[in-house]
Amino acid sequence: MKYHFYNANILSAGEIIKGDVVVEDNVITYVGSSIDTISDRKIDVNGNLLMAGFVNAHTHSPMSIFRGIADDIDLNSWLFDKIFPAEQKLTPEDVYWGEMLGIAEQVRAGITTIEECYFFYDKLLEAINKSGIRCRIGIPNNFQECEDGKMKEFLDSIISQLDNELIKPVIYAHSIYTLSDDELNYLVDYSAKNKLPMSMHMSETLKEVGDCTVKNECTPPEYLENIGFLDRKTTLYHCVHLDKDDIKILADYNVNVVTCPSSNLKLASGIAPIYSMLNQGLNICIGTDGVASNNAFDMFKEMFLVATLNKALLYDASIISAKQVIEMATKNGATALGFDRCGDIKVGNLADLILLDLNAVHHQPLNNIISNIVYSAKSSDVYFTMVNGKILYENGKFYIGENIEDIYSNCKKIAKRIFNLID
Amino acid sequence: MKYHFYNANILSAGEIIKGDVVVEDNVITYVGSSIDTISDRKIDVNGNLLMAGFVNAHTHSPMSIFRGIADDIDLNSWLFDKIFPAEQKLTPEDVYWGEMLGIAEQVRAGITTIEECYFFYDKLLEAINKSGIRCRIGIPNNFQECEDGKMKEFLDSIISQLDNELIKPVIYAHSIYTLSDDELNYLVDYSAKNKLPMSMHMSETLKEVGDCTVKNECTPPEYLENIGFLDRKTTLYHCVHLDKDDIKILADYNVNVVTCPSSNLKLASGIAPIYSMLNQGLNICIGTDGVASNNAFDMFKEMFLVATLNKALLYDASIISAKQVIEMATKNGATALGFDRCGDIKVGNLADLILLDLNAVHHQPLNNIISNIVYSAKSSDVYFTMVNGKILYENGKFYIGENIEDIYSNCKKIAKRIFNLID
Repeated sequence: MKYHFYNANILSAGEIIKGDVVVEDNVITYVGSSIDTISDRKIDVNGNLLMAGFVNAHTHSPMSIFRGIADDIDLNSWLFDKIFPAEQKLTPEDVYWGEMLGIAEQVRAGITTIEECYFFYDKLLEAINKSGIRCRIGIPNNFQECEDGKMKEFLDSIISQLDNELIKPVIYAHSIYTLSDDELNYLVDYSAKNKLPMSMHMSETLKEVGDCTVKNECTPPEYLENIGFLDRKTTLYHCVHLDKDDIKILADYNVNVVTCPSSNLKLASGIAPIYSMLNQGLNICIGTDGVASNNAFDMFKEMFLVATLNKALLYDASIISAKQVIEMATKNGATALGFDRCGDIKVGNLADLILLDLNAVHHQPLNNIISNIVYSAKSSDVYFTMVNGKILYENGKFYIGENIEDIYSNCKKIAKRIFNLID
Repeated sequence: MKYHFYNANILSAGEIIKGDVVVEDNVITYVGSSIDTISDRKIDVNGNLLMAGFVNAHTHSPMSIFRGIADDIDLNSWLFDKIFPAEQKLTPEDVYWGEMLGIAEQVRAGITTIEECYFFYDKLLEAINKSGIRCRIGIPNNFQECEDGKMKEFLDSIISQLDNELIKPVIYAHSIYTLSDDELNYLVDYSAKNKLPMSMHMSETLKEVGDCTVKNECTPPEYLENIGFLDRKTTLYHCVHLDKDDIKILADYNVNVVTCPSSNLKLASGIAPIYSMLNQGLNICIGTDGVASNNAFDMFKEMFLVATLNKALLYDASIISAKQVIEMATKNGATALGFDRCGDIKVGNLADLILLDLNAVHHQPLNNIISNIVYSAKSSDVYFTMVNGKILYENGKFYIGENIEDIYSNCKKIAKRIFNLID
């Protein structure tokens, strides 16, 4: 398929240009002021915005099923009293439908790439493959699903199925507090042998940092440095509670940091030191986390928070710009996840792009498109989402391999079964 | 006109009930499980949410014209270097169109009542009256528009036009730092004689509090107490930087506090001590502030921030509930502004209500409607807005007395003239 988008405001390399974009198969082949070309479909962008899709660098999509079931309680109760028990009741089929629901919400909100971490990998993969979304998938969440001594076989079998243009693997070690030292060491060793990147939730709460310090006599970053975890290409989720030595360690190892501000606020975890991390040159990416904790996939909400929380804490509105934040939500995430040809609109990049309505009342008068993306736009402004040259969402219609009404009704049934909800 | 809404999830007195609502002329005459009645229009709510419209308890709607023109700079530069100079260029006609644009965005986002504070009152009033939105209007912003000795005449003439079911007056003293002691004392005296409520921006920034303390040897709340400002029914905007004695003063005088979290974050002012104020029994309301500072009229964004910012600062997710925050955004605001028959869906109240789409993907599965309102919903979910029994917005169409395209094109021209923007 060849698409010719014309009459667009295009966000490319951090600047707005007016003109056309051509996509051939899954690649962007033209970005410029105007082109006369034959295509399968010409799309009048009508002065709206064409930009790279968002990279949601940390999520657990199937937790969509748990939306709203455990609010206004702290992370430890949330996780151990509510979420873990609910997860025990999930079947592989449930995870398939939860993943589909999560993907539907994400493509509708302009997210084209996700870092997905959950269990029942085969069902996750089935949904991800069917939907067409780009994904780095975390394996494994923990050792529960694997018989003793079979971990290598298990990992090998998953990884052999992955690593193509659309799906890549990352060795996902959930956290220091859920994995034993032996398990962590095993995963570090396996990742090194197979040249795989690693990821982990780290320093999300004060309790986690305190527990680690008591047990290991060092902070989580120091602990990860000690066990060689940071020698791999590493992505760390949250990174809320870091002192300056911690930040220096992360910078020394070129760690990718994924900040999840709405989850951190709502679960009372805290506010991440984005400004300090930025100034140490860290690659900051943005994640929504799962929607049981925040409670929606909305990169616009996350961008607003990343742009403003540190301003308020440090009493300085100039420390983070809208442009930097857009980069975090697109290019930085793509880089962290190893999708180097995504995250920006330029010739040769893969065709992950969205169209965003700038004619809505909350964009008027249109004085500053880049500011509007971060401070005024809503995820409902997205009316077209393309991943790898394929349309996954357009004007209320989903093209993700399952009927949206089936996804809704299945997820409703699952939630009802798990929580005994009354209709 | 008589409207019969059926098949609704109704938010009434903080609980969700399923059923019907009847509106006759401008009053809610039925709220219950089902009614058989003859009406002019039956509206199938289709399981969606019917709730009271939002009360935006602090805004400067015409500043919509300035959206995005001064971002990522601190409040003092923002106000004195960018906004005040731009405001010097505004004509009365500009203010009319800016007000209309602000009202359009607000009714589209489910806001049914505003506290409007800006200059060129006759033009504000013209737009407000024409649109049909409910409003408490602040008079005067400052003394610039009034010849010496003519203030009483000026105030009397405005107030005589107001005070009906839809529009009420409040004596709006902009701030301690923009008004002289004499001007403030004059307004306090005038308000007392005319039994009028008063309002002010207070303790928004550390600089403001510092300047007040240096000049007056007391904090802003102490200063206002000393000059008798708090003896009136008072509404104070922002209230970010308060110590415990300040909060006690505000509580002693039953002050209404309007928190504007997105503006406070983006302008690097700080985070208001909502939890402490709540615990002192203060009536907390929510405002968007003007969209030059935040940059959209979005009570859903504000509710999310009110619900979560104090959680993260105090490391306790249980301190503020979704239900409390919805009350702040509806009933508390209505009470503060003197619209006692607004802010909730109950028989006898005035018909200010909205319909909110719960079938959108980000509400699925619908486990907890009250949580969803604060944590998952978006202003784009609002598809119907009624004020005083009159529809002002429905499914993409505005009924506010001016054509929406005319509003857009006029505001675009104004912005272009003021900022010499290039198309």
